[in-house]
Amino acid sequence: MNFASDNTSGVHPRIMAALAAANDGHPPSYGADALTQAAQDRLREVFEAPGAAVHFVATGTAANALALSQFAPPWGKIYCHASAHIQTSESNAPEFLTGGAKLVALPGEDGRIAPATLAQALHENGRDSVNSGVNSVLSLTNATEWGTVYSPLELAELSARAHAAGLAVHLDGSRLANAIAAQNAAPAAMTWRAGVDVLTLGATKCGCMGVEAVVTFDPDRAAGLGYRRKRAGHLLSKHRYLSAQILAWLDGGLWLDLARHANDMAARLGQGLAALEGVRLNAPVQSNGVFATLPREIFARARAAGAAFAVWPGDQFDDGKGPVPVRLICSWDTRADEVDGFLSVLRAG
Amino acid sequence: MNFASDNTSGVHPRIMAALAAANDGHPPSYGADALTQAAQDRLREVFEAPGAAVHFVATGTAANALALSQFAPPWGKIYCHASAHIQTSESNAPEFLTGGAKLVALPGEDGRIAPATLAQALHENGRDSVNSGVNSVLSLTNATEWGTVYSPLELAELSARAHAAGLAVHLDGSRLANAIAAQNAAPAAMTWRAGVDVLTLGATKCGCMGVEAVVTFDPDRAAGLGYRRKRAGHLLSKHRYLSAQILAWLDGGLWLDLARHANDMAARLGQGLAALEGVRLNAPVQSNGVFATLPREIFARARAAGAAFAVWPGDQFDDGKGPVPVRLICSWDTRADEVDGFLSVLRAG
Amino acid sequence: MNFASDNTSGVHPRIMAALAAANDGHPPSYGADALTQAAQDRLREVFEAPGAAVHFVATGTAANALALSQFAPPWGKIYCHASAHIQTSESNAPEFLTGGAKLVALPGEDGRIAPATLAQALHENGRDSVNSGVNSVLSLTNATEWGTVYSPLELAELSARAHAAGLAVHLDGSRLANAIAAQNAAPAAMTWRAGVDVLTLGATKCGCMGVEAVVTFDPDRAAGLGYRRKRAGHLLSKHRYLSAQILAWLDGGLWLDLARHANDMAARLGQGLAALEGVRLNAPVQSNGVFATLPREIFARARAAGAAFAVWPGDQFDDGKGPVPVRLICSWDTRADEVDGFLSVLRAG
Amino acid sequence: MNFASDNTSGVHPRIMAALAAANDGHPPSYGADALTQAAQDRLREVFEAPGAAVHFVATGTAANALALSQFAPPWGKIYCHASAHIQTSESNAPEFLTGGAKLVALPGEDGRIAPATLAQALHENGRDSVNSGVNSVLSLTNATEWGTVYSPLELAELSARAHAAGLAVHLDGSRLANAIAAQNAAPAAMTWRAGVDVLTLGATKCGCMGVEAVVTFDPDRAAGLGYRRKRAGHLLSKHRYLSAQILAWLDGGLWLDLARHANDMAARLGQGLAALEGVRLNAPVQSNGVFATLPREIFARARAAGAAFAVWPGDQFDDGKGPVPVRLICSWDTRADEVDGFLSVLRAG
Repeated sequence: MNFASDNTSGVHPRIMAALAAANDGHPPSYGADALTQAAQDRLREVFEAPGAAVHFVATGTAANALALSQFAPPWGKIYCHASAHIQTSESNAPEFLTGGAKLVALPGEDGRIAPATLAQALHENGRDSVNSGVNSVLSLTNATEWGTVYSPLELAELSARAHAAGLAVHLDGSRLANAIAAQNAAPAAMTWRAGVDVLTLGATKCGCMGVEAVVTFDPDRAAGLGYRRKRAGHLLSKHRYLSAQILAWLDGGLWLDLARHANDMAARLGQGLAALEGVRLNAPVQSNGVFATLPREIFARARAAGAAFAVWPGDQFDDGKGPVPVRLICSWDTRADEVDGFLSVLRAG
Repeated sequence: MNFASDNTSGVHPRIMAALAAANDGHPPSYGADALTQAAQDRLREVFEAPGAAVHFVATGTAANALALSQFAPPWGKIYCHASAHIQTSESNAPEFLTGGAKLVALPGEDGRIAPATLAQALHENGRDSVNSGVNSVLSLTNATEWGTVYSPLELAELSARAHAAGLAVHLDGSRLANAIAAQNAAPAAMTWRAGVDVLTLGATKCGCMGVEAVVTFDPDRAAGLGYRRKRAGHLLSKHRYLSAQILAWLDGGLWLDLARHANDMAARLGQGLAALEGVRLNAPVQSNGVFATLPREIFARARAAGAAFAVWPGDQFDDGKGPVPVRLICSWDTRADEVDGFLSVLRAG
Repeated sequence: MNFASDNTSGVHPRIMAALAAANDGHPPSYGADALTQAAQDRLREVFEAPGAAVHFVATGTAANALALSQFAPPWGKIYCHASAHIQTSESNAPEFLTGGAKLVALPGEDGRIAPATLAQALHENGRDSVNSGVNSVLSLTNATEWGTVYSPLELAELSARAHAAGLAVHLDGSRLANAIAAQNAAPAAMTWRAGVDVLTLGATKCGCMGVEAVVTFDPDRAAGLGYRRKRAGHLLSKHRYLSAQILAWLDGGLWLDLARHANDMAARLGQGLAALEGVRLNAPVQSNGVFATLPREIFARARAAGAAFAVWPGDQFDDGKGPVPVRLICSWDTRADEVDGFLSVLRAG
Repeated sequence: MNFASDNTSGVHPRIMAALAAANDGHPPSYGADALTQAAQDRLREVFEAPGAAVHFVATGTAANALALSQFAPPWGKIYCHASAHIQTSESNAPEFLTGGAKLVALPGEDGRIAPATLAQALHENGRDSVNSGVNSVLSLTNATEWGTVYSPLELAELSARAHAAGLAVHLDGSRLANAIAAQNAAPAAMTWRAGVDVLTLGATKCGCMGVEAVVTFDPDRAAGLGYRRKRAGHLLSKHRYLSAQILAWLDGGLWLDLARHANDMAARLGQGLAALEGVRLNAPVQSNGVFATLPREIFARARAAGAAFAVWPGDQFDDGKGPVPVRLICSWDTRADEVDGFLSVLRAG
């Protein structure tokens, strides 16, 4: 019963097999190999973006910060939700890799930015000036940190406002597969067709060992990215092992199958929780995460049974007495019987 | 009729004379001269802080960012008011000179942070962790960007909360002289006795040509500041000309006399404005700035008469039709007849 | 016949098996798992350094730059050989991750720094001052970029000079296994007992998929390293897959067996080359690299046969007509018959 | 008898008068005032560069680092002489303000880079690549740190080589006035006509209080410089006081008169020294600095008489027993009788 995070799950067997298969031969290092070319091409095909620049790295934090650094100068401002990973969980990596850009945190229900909130923030921040700096990027997260999902239409509306104000749009797609599966939309519809300029595509949380892609839809904007990646220490020498993961992950739609399964498990879990007396869902269940407040005794039963999950959005929200807000994440390898078993434990009082 | 900013005013004659007097001889450069030693000592004396480390630079932005860099590591978080100069008007200099620290902007009426707001923000940001970064600094501004003033007691309460949570306290004292004059309190009472760990003391806006001091009350924390200042290009070679300004400025309490005069002019202006029909003060007048919303016709008369002042907090808040929020700053050289003449213009409709 | 680099070789089967074995369960992410603890402990044991701080990352560039950032402040100077990887091949990552430290490149035969050269450089650079910055680190590489190896005694002499001048000693051990195997010395003797303060231990080039360790022998100096790693995007979420590699690599001395094999192959290759008329070795063969100048016709035969290797130290040293200086690297999976076949090709004129 | 540095001298009376004259009125701050416009225009006129972008700052270190940051990306390489101020005396400010560019130090007699040395260095560093970084800037200093002067022809030859290799050319003109006076050449001939892309024009050492100009001859390259200056804390609020200095300094050729006088004094001093038995000049006297090795007893006499000057290139070159290498700098206010008096002291043994 492990709902701690999708990054505590292992590697899907087909991806593990792809790593083993990549182990032959002596291809060039640093990304000049055929597997890397193939993975980049496959990704461009899946996103219907034949001209996109594609760079692989091993962590989501690196992917986000490198993606942002292409569009935000050191004196730039990056607008994001207050709960965005780049704001709360990357130890200032975006500030570091951009050379000092400022993150402007916006409020919003369920982890989402409302268009009116964005408009208001842009109004208040005013025009670019030497003193105020430059309005540079709107960073969205999909699925959000609260498990909710923007639709293509919603993304397009936010992007349009951002572009009108001169901002580029970054999408933190650490869980984009889950969002796409949830919307049953084309990858292109959830990204560049909705105005996204640069995408961080997460694969690690969805069955890979450790690989993320920075997809820059206008390759001219990626001119320096090879240098940026290397000088930040993020160019892996045996690069084929990143690429092999991506190829296997995309192959036959595995990525969306794994995401859909995780979403299904979360739906199952969410429904079960909602039926429990005293439990309140803190956000609609739209992808692979369930956010709920548990009565103290239910929380205690779950912990006593050894279930792993997080108090959310932080341990400080458990006062030791009252109800406890928690996050429960389902993964590609969460089993239905695991969900049901967990629910049984909760009900067993 | 110039109420644009206290940095459009000139240099006080006594300070200009001090610059001329400093022009003799060939003292050592880079701050190793006797005038610099004297200015540092005088400042320590005035603040009753014999052990403090004192460094001079030519701009407030440099002073703020250098001050912060001593207490916030690159992975640190700095809490400040949403209207703080370091947040709105320094083009990310704090992020740059700290090596990437994150500024967390807090709301608050009249440019002030309420203790409960600080407590809530610290609660929500939670404990330090490798992912979230480190809670490092509370940066206060006194007088604030809305002309209001924290009392020693208010400062002490905020500092106590900050210290309890492991944060150091920085005071942006770009207009500290005005705040001290307003409170009629001792400089020590408005700084280290109220828990301030590092002070940016502004002199430029209050009659100097261009000099600010970074005052680090615990000199151990200033161990690297000499290097930080130099490697940011802020160590002036003919350093005596910074020091001479400070000496003359502090001499005989000139600094507080100038600040008091500016405050008095703002009080006179605020009272006159408040008496005008349709004018609303947007913040209490407590130092040398007056913040008011002017009916369109009054605003137009002021502009037609050539008065200089800013739409505040930005040009985007003038919709071209309705009332206009403005900022009117009085300076050490604002004259009473200038204030009265301005009020006459406004009334002349 | 691939002598391009030791990072074009694959992953050793025992390490691949360890990755597969690590794929079970849902251990905590971000390095809080038992495998990581075990790998750190095993490494400390192998180096007889029970108190050392051990951090894993995926690239050598990251490991070097993070290691240096603990000892060189942004205003620090780092002395290294002119051919050091940190100087020539990391696209300024050390400058970036230290926040701006300066690399001072020293000359020296065969990729090695002579004690007198170090002494002379330290003399010329003089004492620390606010203007000149701070002498901070001596960075050595072992085995060097020219395949030569410092002995424990040589390391100790250089370290002693560095320490006497207040510098810490960093060892870029991208190929430390090869150096240890070559010297048949204890890991401790080649590192901390010889004065090394922080080690970058490379495993990727010696049979792993992608993992390096930063070993800080005095853990107090590593206080901020967890933050530094995260904020540079180098904390892998599914961290156990780094640790599993290290464990299998150290297990039963595999690392030294692989390194010794690579060294043996280089010795075989070097002897064969030296026996060819017109071939000159450019550095003594002491680890797994052979550096030689080939007559044009021999060079052409090798290329025609499809052998992969680099013109060294750069393509610009091939003038298209005369003899060509080359680098030939042997790896853990280089076969004796591959070496012999290559030599046959060269001789076949 | 002060030959310590040209930055220990005071401010020329005409410049002091200009500061006093600038003290009237309330012009806009942050460089939007008429004096600043006039100073920029005057400088463009003097350099026959009507389109150049001109930015003023208060220190030479800031001017150099900002100038370089326009042409060297964080992954760039900057070639300079080993004795260049940016390499030896700015505490890594260039590395900091460029975001991490690497300085490559070149040897060369008398503080000068020989064309062949540059060619060799560029050859050895090879082509740009993701691993090696980008060859970006050649930084020259004129007059050099050893008081020697490049002629327009010599500058043009070095620039041509740099441009052919894709590098921009930066000129550290901390003492450009002295170099121009020495060559009796047009300012344009010593800068952009000789291939200089960006100039740091020093005025502080030549009679000003504290002001330097960054002159970017192709204004398109200066697009971000306003932001760079502000975010480094180098935009002075009461900016007119920088501009007033420049205007008075250029007015009527004062700058070159002051420089010529300093050069003349150095020539007088150099001739006197060369005539002393046992004294050796360490570089030809071509501008306002004299570099000589003094016999111990002469050195001791000078010190005993209270003369101020530096052991050069560092205190460590005084072994306490033998002859001592020294630097003697003449300034705009060095008097002939001061030089003669100093020589008398030296001869008085």
